[in-house]
Amino acid sequence: MDLDTSKLIDGNRVAESIYEELRAEIAELSGRAPRVVFIRVGEDPASRFYVSKKKKIALSIGAESDIVILPETITEEELIVKVKEFNKDDGTDGILVQAPLPKGISEANVFNSIDPKKDVDGFNVLNSGLLVQEDLESFAPCTPQGILELLKREKIETTGKHVVVIGRSLIVGKPMALLLARKHPQGNATVTICHSRSENLPEITKQADILVSAIGRPATVTADMVKEGAVVIDVGINRVDDPEAKKGYRIVGDVDFEAVVPLVSKITPVPGGVGPMTVATLMQNTLKAYKLRHSR
Amino acid sequence: MDLDTSKLIDGNRVAESIYEELRAEIAELSGRAPRVVFIRVGEDPASRFYVSKKKKIALSIGAESDIVILPETITEEELIVKVKEFNKDDGTDGILVQAPLPKGISEANVFNSIDPKKDVDGFNVLNSGLLVQEDLESFAPCTPQGILELLKREKIETTGKHVVVIGRSLIVGKPMALLLARKHPQGNATVTICHSRSENLPEITKQADILVSAIGRPATVTADMVKEGAVVIDVGINRVDDPEAKKGYRIVGDVDFEAVVPLVSKITPVPGGVGPMTVATLMQNTLKAYKLRHSR
Repeated sequence: MDLDTSKLIDGNRVAESIYEELRAEIAELSGRAPRVVFIRVGEDPASRFYVSKKKKIALSIGAESDIVILPETITEEELIVKVKEFNKDDGTDGILVQAPLPKGISEANVFNSIDPKKDVDGFNVLNSGLLVQEDLESFAPCTPQGILELLKREKIETTGKHVVVIGRSLIVGKPMALLLARKHPQGNATVTICHSRSENLPEITKQADILVSAIGRPATVTADMVKEGAVVIDVGINRVDDPEAKKGYRIVGDVDFEAVVPLVSKITPVPGGVGPMTVATLMQNTLKAYKLRHSR
Repeated sequence: MDLDTSKLIDGNRVAESIYEELRAEIAELSGRAPRVVFIRVGEDPASRFYVSKKKKIALSIGAESDIVILPETITEEELIVKVKEFNKDDGTDGILVQAPLPKGISEANVFNSIDPKKDVDGFNVLNSGLLVQEDLESFAPCTPQGILELLKREKIETTGKHVVVIGRSLIVGKPMALLLARKHPQGNATVTICHSRSENLPEITKQADILVSAIGRPATVTADMVKEGAVVIDVGINRVDDPEAKKGYRIVGDVDFEAVVPLVSKITPVPGGVGPMTVATLMQNTLKAYKLRHSR
């Protein structure tokens, strides 16, 4: 089957154009460059990969960046002490603690210990509250905020439209719903939140003008669940076995991609759709944190 | 037309049974009674009415209560100084600043200055954030929390059901959606948030198993917008002119009541539905604040 590539939303391309903008803006700054610190606990391969990629991109746009590696055996209290050192450090604008954290450490407690003004990942409870209050100076979680940016740059209207979000996580589903429902030109949508307990899921998703899937299970969104002409945003990043692939697996999203593409007006591929936007938003948030701190 | 009263959800009766429970529990406490302080700014008649009613009910269940009356001319800074005095006062468990506040005072700033552990109205930004994080020790705004309690006591199942909320306010719409979508036996619903910018509103509301209207405009919900057998929760409190009424007006909700009643399985009347539950929840929150502070 030939894929109609005109329907694909190219997250890599959009992320690149954001990096160019950030690079230009950072080059113009007087004084030191924005600095983001990544705290990684243990040696989880995915965490190692993500953190080193984020650092590389930060450096590539002219920001400063460091990775702090802490042992798997660290306690919650010790980790929070470390976070607070960077809270106090005037030379650090953004702090990201890479999830997942080892068992026994409350991710909520750690995220909530980050200075809200340096919380470039947007998981601190104060930033969640400010999101509810529609405060534009707050930091929203990177993935839903990156999706908003993608919709904006692809000129996909949200006002008055029906957006259905599958998934109610703190990281994607709930902030996505809050961002899209707020009084804002990039919001103003009718928003439905669905999840594992939802009855009649296909009946609901089939109404979506924009369908966002963030459930983390391959082939969750099948062709019978998508309205003709819908925009589909696939947040899932799932490994499936593939003996033909060099590594023995390949990465797919939540959407039964080949079956759904013929129906949609636009769709994000996996990989190369939402993923790059999450990192691009992190970089935007780093510059935003720098500017907020330097405008005081 | 004879009204089928078996369909009416009697908020006054449910509130009364909550007051009986609270009265019994407070009578058993050792030491001083829970204490809630109401701060009223200016002489707005509705605010005077609500605050004195809340105080009367607090006293009737055995709590202590005071009304602090501040002049219309107070500045935001002065009001916040006053709030902080009660934050520090060990004998005060709950603080409520009655809205609306005079022009020029940011309600968000004032609500955010209340100690989150004394924030019985649930409008502090930290409590909004904890609601997103699904922390059960937080205080949720009284009206949506009171609606949850009403649904629970009327044995109306929410898990898997489709709830449509009309209105996206900080006080009702958004916290209602967050409470109903969370992983909890009184949540687990598929939730749709609609508002003034929503397209095809009747088409969406007609799918609701439970329809919550919190838009504040009479006759917003008409018969063509309601599914046969739905539960309708009417949060609106609107004055409409009525030359036959003694005061020249009467209070109605958002729902075109007489036309909608024949369709529903259950409905809250206005007055006497959601309204009493808002006050009952405030009293529950006062006892909860007392217990949280005394269990430390």
